[in-house]
Amino acid sequence: MKKYSLDSRKVEQAMNDWLHKRGVQRTDIAELVMYLQQGYYSDLTLEECLASVEKVLAKREVQNAVLTGIQLDLLADQGKLFSPLQDMIENDEGLYGCDEVLALSIVNIYGSIGFTNFGYLDKVKPGIIGKLNKKGGPMVHTFLDDIVGAIAASAASSIAHNKQKIAEEKNARQAEPTDGSEI
Amino acid sequence: MKKYSLDSRKVEQAMNDWLHKRGVQRTDIAELVMYLQQGYYSDLTLEECLASVEKVLAKREVQNAVLTGIQLDLLADQGKLFSPLQDMIENDEGLYGCDEVLALSIVNIYGSIGFTNFGYLDKVKPGIIGKLNKKGGPMVHTFLDDIVGAIAASAASSIAHNKQKIAEEKNARQAEPTDGSEI
Amino acid sequence: MKKYSLDSRKVEQAMNDWLHKRGVQRTDIAELVMYLQQGYYSDLTLEECLASVEKVLAKREVQNAVLTGIQLDLLADQGKLFSPLQDMIENDEGLYGCDEVLALSIVNIYGSIGFTNFGYLDKVKPGIIGKLNKKGGPMVHTFLDDIVGAIAASAASSIAHNKQKIAEEKNARQAEPTDGSEI
Amino acid sequence: MKKYSLDSRKVEQAMNDWLHKRGVQRTDIAELVMYLQQGYYSDLTLEECLASVEKVLAKREVQNAVLTGIQLDLLADQGKLFSPLQDMIENDEGLYGCDEVLALSIVNIYGSIGFTNFGYLDKVKPGIIGKLNKKGGPMVHTFLDDIVGAIAASAASSIAHNKQKIAEEKNARQAEPTDGSEI
Repeated sequence: MKKYSLDSRKVEQAMNDWLHKRGVQRTDIAELVMYLQQGYYSDLTLEECLASVEKVLAKREVQNAVLTGIQLDLLADQGKLFSPLQDMIENDEGLYGCDEVLALSIVNIYGSIGFTNFGYLDKVKPGIIGKLNKKGGPMVHTFLDDIVGAIAASAASSIAHNKQKIAEEKNARQAEPTDGSEI
Repeated sequence: MKKYSLDSRKVEQAMNDWLHKRGVQRTDIAELVMYLQQGYYSDLTLEECLASVEKVLAKREVQNAVLTGIQLDLLADQGKLFSPLQDMIENDEGLYGCDEVLALSIVNIYGSIGFTNFGYLDKVKPGIIGKLNKKGGPMVHTFLDDIVGAIAASAASSIAHNKQKIAEEKNARQAEPTDGSEI
Repeated sequence: MKKYSLDSRKVEQAMNDWLHKRGVQRTDIAELVMYLQQGYYSDLTLEECLASVEKVLAKREVQNAVLTGIQLDLLADQGKLFSPLQDMIENDEGLYGCDEVLALSIVNIYGSIGFTNFGYLDKVKPGIIGKLNKKGGPMVHTFLDDIVGAIAASAASSIAHNKQKIAEEKNARQAEPTDGSEI
Repeated sequence: MKKYSLDSRKVEQAMNDWLHKRGVQRTDIAELVMYLQQGYYSDLTLEECLASVEKVLAKREVQNAVLTGIQLDLLADQGKLFSPLQDMIENDEGLYGCDEVLALSIVNIYGSIGFTNFGYLDKVKPGIIGKLNKKGGPMVHTFLDDIVGAIAASAASSIAHNKQKIAEEKNARQAEPTDGSEI
């Protein structure tokens, strides 16, 4: 019997494959980040949002939550969960909150400033979240819509931290003495 | 020296007094609950919302969070926090998240289905939350606006659980055999 | 097609059945509570601990977490999860934390004073937790051992709150005037 | 009036100063990390633990929690909190959990695998945590003992992630073909 050992590349690869198979592109998530943050940073580009999404997706805790959530959605698609869990997940039961629990574990990694954005996305359901949340399709996305919102909220937090860093560095440079020594 | 012993009535009384002094009435919070839930339950009354708010406020964990948050706001009003915490709380710094952390500890008690409503209130800032959040007044409400949103989100969760219970009891009664044996 | 509607009794019944099938009795959990709390309350009985466990298990959020965790354990038993999630859950991978995430959602309901007990049980693994955690048996319990610890930690929190209430009521009675007016 | 703008260096500097003033050295925290992890990694050095503690302390969310917790401890020292919050924090009331709440916000950043270590440290109280927790001294450390435990638990999580990365890189190198093409 082969001894188990964790292979991080396989975990990341599986997350990428499954996000793709379930209909979520990285740019879909980047667009949610743009939706959340463009009011605060007029110069924000989709590329920056995408880079921030990539950074979030590189975290193992995020990868674990994505895989676990998609696995449960997939089993619900196939009717393979036991009753009444099957019914609750298949129907996105309002009093079932394990999907939010898993999503929050993603948001937590980028700190508490992401909670607001997560909750807002979950209520307003813009872009890909609205598509995932549409009932009646062949796929169940009870977990995935919350997880995608959590990734976007985390990426938005990350951008807020970065923009602050850039602003402070700029201030620091402007505050430097200009006594001719630089000429 | 008098030995310390916890007096729960004093904790609850202090919370009530401080909410009042900081300009928050129970009906203000009940109106937030109504705002969140009226779309789901057409027969929902403000009295039900108020009763739900009372239930949330009876929890010690909630009372602790309210007192701690208001204490920090109050000290910020008075300029008595050390630097740079004073500046961050006084200015509701976007990258300072301890207010959300404390608020989340309230939401958690009523389970994960409240996260969405909490985040939504924090973004949209209806009613009393908008008033508290208005900058420039004599009082700092960096913690209190999040805490009020958390109480409302928790009360909304509690209503969702109650309504389900009532619906199931009604179904159970309708499903009872009416074979004359009750006559 | 039958319309979905949540049946709370079925959810509770399924939780009870599955805990039993996976080898966890309510008294096993009550013994963990006793282990945690007997140092603080010399008069604590196993019956009180059991009553507290029952109260925790009556919460829907707890039922949802128990069912979801056992479902994932069960699928791991059967080798039915996709790779590499199957390997991570089957081998209780140290860097996989969704089991702790789900367990924490139980602890949160009884407030933050339960975190310490949860972490302690997870490290020391007394009683049933040690049995569940033993590798090499036919069943995977990656989620269940954490969930059982979370239920015990929550029940311990509930006892701490109750004991305080009883102590205050006793003090209140002793502080009442005994001026003969009660005769 | 001077416009407010966040200065990250001041926040970090204030955290460092206050940890020092309240009697906590970085090596004290590193020793807790060593205590937690030496059973798993026989080659672990105090330097590695210290580097990991530094990394945790560089996170803004951590800095915010440290400052907020020490501020509340300090005000409790001075008797400047309102009643009954003053009594609850001064006496480290068992049913007051905002200290654990703030500490958990630190642990969350490094993911759920840190919860266990946090709870364990809080129960066993080794090293500096035991010293901080000793009642009767001139300083109240109701928040700081939990916060120090949370920093150590987070640093332990970070080490677990790093060690995995190193192990996988080593495996990858060993698996490379040695066909002479590197000469």
